[in-house]
Amino acid sequence: MSNPPLRGFTQTEFEARTERAQRMMRALEVDAILLTTEPHVRYFSGFLTQFWQSPTRPWFLLLPLSGKPIAVIPTIGVAGMQQTWIDDIRSWSSPQPQDDGVSLLLSTIRELPGRFGRLGMTLGMESYLRMPANDYRLLATELADMELVDCAEPMLNLCSIKSSAEVEKIRYICELTSDSFIALPGFAKTGQSEREILRSMRIDLLQRGADHTPYIVSASGKDGYGDIIMGPGDRPLEDGDIMIIDTGTVYDGYYCDFDRNYAFGYASDKAKQAYTTVFHSTEAGLVAARPGATTTDVWQAMWSVLEAGGARGNDVGRMGHGLGAQLTEWPSLTASDHTTLEPGMVITLEPGMEFAAGKLMVHEENILITENGADLLSKRAAAELSVIT
Amino acid sequence: MSNPPLRGFTQTEFEARTERAQRMMRALEVDAILLTTEPHVRYFSGFLTQFWQSPTRPWFLLLPLSGKPIAVIPTIGVAGMQQTWIDDIRSWSSPQPQDDGVSLLLSTIRELPGRFGRLGMTLGMESYLRMPANDYRLLATELADMELVDCAEPMLNLCSIKSSAEVEKIRYICELTSDSFIALPGFAKTGQSEREILRSMRIDLLQRGADHTPYIVSASGKDGYGDIIMGPGDRPLEDGDIMIIDTGTVYDGYYCDFDRNYAFGYASDKAKQAYTTVFHSTEAGLVAARPGATTTDVWQAMWSVLEAGGARGNDVGRMGHGLGAQLTEWPSLTASDHTTLEPGMVITLEPGMEFAAGKLMVHEENILITENGADLLSKRAAAELSVIT
Repeated sequence: MSNPPLRGFTQTEFEARTERAQRMMRALEVDAILLTTEPHVRYFSGFLTQFWQSPTRPWFLLLPLSGKPIAVIPTIGVAGMQQTWIDDIRSWSSPQPQDDGVSLLLSTIRELPGRFGRLGMTLGMESYLRMPANDYRLLATELADMELVDCAEPMLNLCSIKSSAEVEKIRYICELTSDSFIALPGFAKTGQSEREILRSMRIDLLQRGADHTPYIVSASGKDGYGDIIMGPGDRPLEDGDIMIIDTGTVYDGYYCDFDRNYAFGYASDKAKQAYTTVFHSTEAGLVAARPGATTTDVWQAMWSVLEAGGARGNDVGRMGHGLGAQLTEWPSLTASDHTTLEPGMVITLEPGMEFAAGKLMVHEENILITENGADLLSKRAAAELSVIT
Repeated sequence: MSNPPLRGFTQTEFEARTERAQRMMRALEVDAILLTTEPHVRYFSGFLTQFWQSPTRPWFLLLPLSGKPIAVIPTIGVAGMQQTWIDDIRSWSSPQPQDDGVSLLLSTIRELPGRFGRLGMTLGMESYLRMPANDYRLLATELADMELVDCAEPMLNLCSIKSSAEVEKIRYICELTSDSFIALPGFAKTGQSEREILRSMRIDLLQRGADHTPYIVSASGKDGYGDIIMGPGDRPLEDGDIMIIDTGTVYDGYYCDFDRNYAFGYASDKAKQAYTTVFHSTEAGLVAARPGATTTDVWQAMWSVLEAGGARGNDVGRMGHGLGAQLTEWPSLTASDHTTLEPGMVITLEPGMEFAAGKLMVHEENILITENGADLLSKRAAAELSVIT
């Protein structure tokens, strides 16, 4: 196991992120971008806190065309924001339902030099505004002389290319989680419930040095499972069951996101065959995932193997996606996504299929796209289904 | 320690929640309410999954004027939603950037009987729409014959009164977390970092039966701390340090949210005095928190004690709040909130003050408002500052 990477990032990294965004902003002809969500505020400021779990207060970060980002935040966050590279921090005592930061935000926006008369916001694809919709409408009304421009897709694009410091955090949590999956047959037994096994794995991940596990789900059933997002369940596992565990575990704000399958007692030929099909589908994905290939090329490479192996369908909606500061990020590996892969992207390969009525088999690995193709961040799953006896 | 409450809720509970909402809807004269966030979808459907960690796909739940809620969700969630009491489940294969469920949502809304010509959405206070703002605008345009009406505050109000089944889950996680705080001096020592101690506490909470700990932060410093949302830090604790730990830990989707303070080695008179002041402030809150009193009455009762004890100020913005399905919920205990407390509300009492330059002392307890006043859900903090030696 590698040593844990240093926490946080250098100021140079935040300068580089901001400069990339500002180049993008000049191309989009916007004077500033207003950001409201945790990953975006963190990406440009370094403000890393669990406090976003509290939904009550809005937080704003403004990226101007030049210079450092400006924070417009509740007073409770000022001491923390002062620890980052941000200098211009404006605050109000929140919660304040009559005006929860909006007038302060408006006056800050109005101070910015107006070159294009356009304000960027994340309004479109895979975005939401973490602020009341009425306040968004108020912004639009009050800034009647400015055009509000959707920057959702360019922002997804920008954050999809990871720096080497980001990659090292993801690689570390992927390694650590791989080791926990490898150790799992030592603490999971027939007769336990998924909930008991996942509790043991949460503890094991913490003991190995993970910060926390925001996502760990499981499903199980005779020969296969029917769902991959609802567990854990409380039914005792029986011989012949196949169990999947999928986890997004975090180190210093960066996620892994992959799963592993286990058979309890024995594995039927049908389950073993489905496992092998999905394993080979992942192999095809690993070969296809190169700079210049598209997400759809990789999807096609994986889907062809599943189809030849008897796949009935796939309700997941995609067979992989970006990851990093969030459990799932843009782009998606689908039949119609067509995003060109670039070095520095971190994605999951997640082929899955229904191989019998109501029986799914899903695999997942995490990779970095390099000039030379896919660099595995997770330790490759075993070629044959692990049997816990 | 009590036995863990049964997981989930009876169908009767979901029927009662829906009927309460429908009464509210008739009063508000809306034909339906569109919900988009995890706590709201879960409240009316029982759909409990960690999958909301993935920000990619929108999820919709429509409350009609009569009958059960209608789910409009990505295919990946159908198998899970079928396990709930919801019958009408409509789905699309997501992600699908060109139309991520919006046309399906629109056609579903148009099928509903139109009595008032008004659609409720959470647009105002403490709300956000977990869907792209452009799709919200598209809804408004396409539903030009319907008025979109803000239901944020009535929804906050509705969810603030907890059922006895909800209270039992909160009480359980409060008890379990209280026991972990009581045990903490057994596993925390001078020389360890906050991060090490919080990792041990996460493990202890899991071993006691908590599901997970989405929120656990700490801060520390000589005599007091300067912030309460940014930790844990990596500095080794020294004798004379005061450390606060604040956690939102979860059982079956319900949170506790309270903190405890510890001195390492010894506590200075100044720190002990601040602790005593804040302890007595909480006592005043416990007396003041009765049905018919307002959040502001309770705030005033607590603030008077802090002021008399030499408080310089409070950057938190409030001294308590609702909790339950989320770490923090409406209402807020502030000087201007004026919400009347009602039986069934679960709130935190969270008096805090700056007692010397950059030195905070914050206490927190969780209570249920009953006909007879405050019912403590957390085990009351010690009257004197615990010293870890």
